[in-house]
Amino acid sequence: MALATRVAVLIGGVGGAKLASGLMHVVAPERLTFIVNTGDDFWRLGLKICPDLDTVMYTLAGLVNRETGWGIAGDETAVMDSLEGHYGVEPWFRLGDKDLATHLLRAQGLRQGNSLTEVTDCLARRLGVSARLLPMCDEETPTLVDTADRGELGFQEYFVKHSWRPIVKSIKHKDCEKATMSAPVSSALETADVILIAPSNPWLSVAPILAVPGMRQALKRADAPVVAITPIIAGAAVKGPTAKIMAELGLPVSEAAVARFYGGIIDGFVNDIRNEPLRVEGIRAVRLNTLMTDDAAKAALARDALDWIAGWAA
Amino acid sequence: MALATRVAVLIGGVGGAKLASGLMHVVAPERLTFIVNTGDDFWRLGLKICPDLDTVMYTLAGLVNRETGWGIAGDETAVMDSLEGHYGVEPWFRLGDKDLATHLLRAQGLRQGNSLTEVTDCLARRLGVSARLLPMCDEETPTLVDTADRGELGFQEYFVKHSWRPIVKSIKHKDCEKATMSAPVSSALETADVILIAPSNPWLSVAPILAVPGMRQALKRADAPVVAITPIIAGAAVKGPTAKIMAELGLPVSEAAVARFYGGIIDGFVNDIRNEPLRVEGIRAVRLNTLMTDDAAKAALARDALDWIAGWAA
Repeated sequence: MALATRVAVLIGGVGGAKLASGLMHVVAPERLTFIVNTGDDFWRLGLKICPDLDTVMYTLAGLVNRETGWGIAGDETAVMDSLEGHYGVEPWFRLGDKDLATHLLRAQGLRQGNSLTEVTDCLARRLGVSARLLPMCDEETPTLVDTADRGELGFQEYFVKHSWRPIVKSIKHKDCEKATMSAPVSSALETADVILIAPSNPWLSVAPILAVPGMRQALKRADAPVVAITPIIAGAAVKGPTAKIMAELGLPVSEAAVARFYGGIIDGFVNDIRNEPLRVEGIRAVRLNTLMTDDAAKAALARDALDWIAGWAA
Repeated sequence: MALATRVAVLIGGVGGAKLASGLMHVVAPERLTFIVNTGDDFWRLGLKICPDLDTVMYTLAGLVNRETGWGIAGDETAVMDSLEGHYGVEPWFRLGDKDLATHLLRAQGLRQGNSLTEVTDCLARRLGVSARLLPMCDEETPTLVDTADRGELGFQEYFVKHSWRPIVKSIKHKDCEKATMSAPVSSALETADVILIAPSNPWLSVAPILAVPGMRQALKRADAPVVAITPIIAGAAVKGPTAKIMAELGLPVSEAAVARFYGGIIDGFVNDIRNEPLRVEGIRAVRLNTLMTDDAAKAALARDALDWIAGWAA
């Protein structure tokens, strides 16, 4: 079924991009829509930085730095070095030189009055991306992390400047009540055959998407099955602060806690072969190899997950 | 006299910057004020490009690329290459990577509501420039070149995109009637002991400064002698389109035509040793070596010109 399936994916940054890469091998790209977290976005030096959109875009365009999982392969930082060396501006968020081309064009497009949806579409197409890349919304709903040791921090301050060391008390999606689902996002969810939630950080990367007014209802209303893929393998996160945050929020660090977090939204859960079988009422589960260590594993996970879901109808 | 002399200099880009460099060797930098042409300025990719301000600033900061006379030494163009290679944006005006740091900070400063005078001062001081660097005004008065073969062109289109090949019919300073002399420019002209007009292109680089309302009157009113340095040596320009434009405007390509262009403003004219003696009524003249081939020649011209002017009082 895979090639002809219309798949919509709720997705964050690096972890999600691995799944995106796998899906590109098993689904026709024009049938793939990625609905990307923009809670991490911020303005800096007059540029709009969209870390997750860019990570997914560069991955789909084959430009991504495969060592870091983000940024452009082979990029350098002459502009940032000059800002620091010549002007004494400490750029804790370091943008690469090639990457800056994206940011200059994006900021220009936004200032000319285009929406983030329009600008993203234009950038992705120019990079030769055939899949649809959509910001979760056009409004700015910055993720704020309230921490025990440093008070409330903007997402990038928490994540990059303080390397996610501060202890998380709660997470807010500022101004999310003012956001609206864009027509392309609504349409992608309505027409999808399958809706996936990528193995991105549920609290930092997926929760901002779910906080867009109407998003939860659209997922419930959708004809397509909604299936999340576990970001927790053997009691730990593959990368990043998922497990740390779960512990700080007083949750058990388990795939079941993630499945419960998505309760009422998901119909299915792709668990990992290393985990215990998932038993959460109302949620179908399967165990697959979700550790996407190479291209073959990424494609296999995408194929196996879609095949499993296709089997539900039979 | 030189070190204690307060010198204000009307100045354009590369040719003017050589004189600026020479003056730095013979006048205490805090007594030097450069009033810089901004008629070449334009916005591109959300960045404000100020070619002459940057050329003078980088020269004074010791950062300038000495081969081209503009841009930062050792700079590369990864951002522009990415714009072209990844996004198909043809950047006919190529900014270097290190140079982009300046443009990001300038655009940000302007967007935050600071004037170009304030932003320029901040940038120059951060680069360790002790001389005062002033845009001729804060308003935008873009130079437009009406050409026989390509119609009206923006300055950079004429100069960079078409490599000053089109035949000039006339030159306009758009919106110059709306510009105002800033307080620092007025004050620099009022308090100067000497006012120099650098050997920049009179029509493209100095005329925009003279077009700022009140500028000609301020020069006439100034106590200080006003002295221009010839951009024409032996019937030709050292570099750039000065001679070509003079011919196209129907003028003789001579230092006398330049001196007459500055008629009513200048009291003195530094002619070149290779030229015939200048005989223009009401203008004192001297012949010096104005061909600034190396640092010693730049300093010598600055010293000799100031010494000559100092002698007038005697």
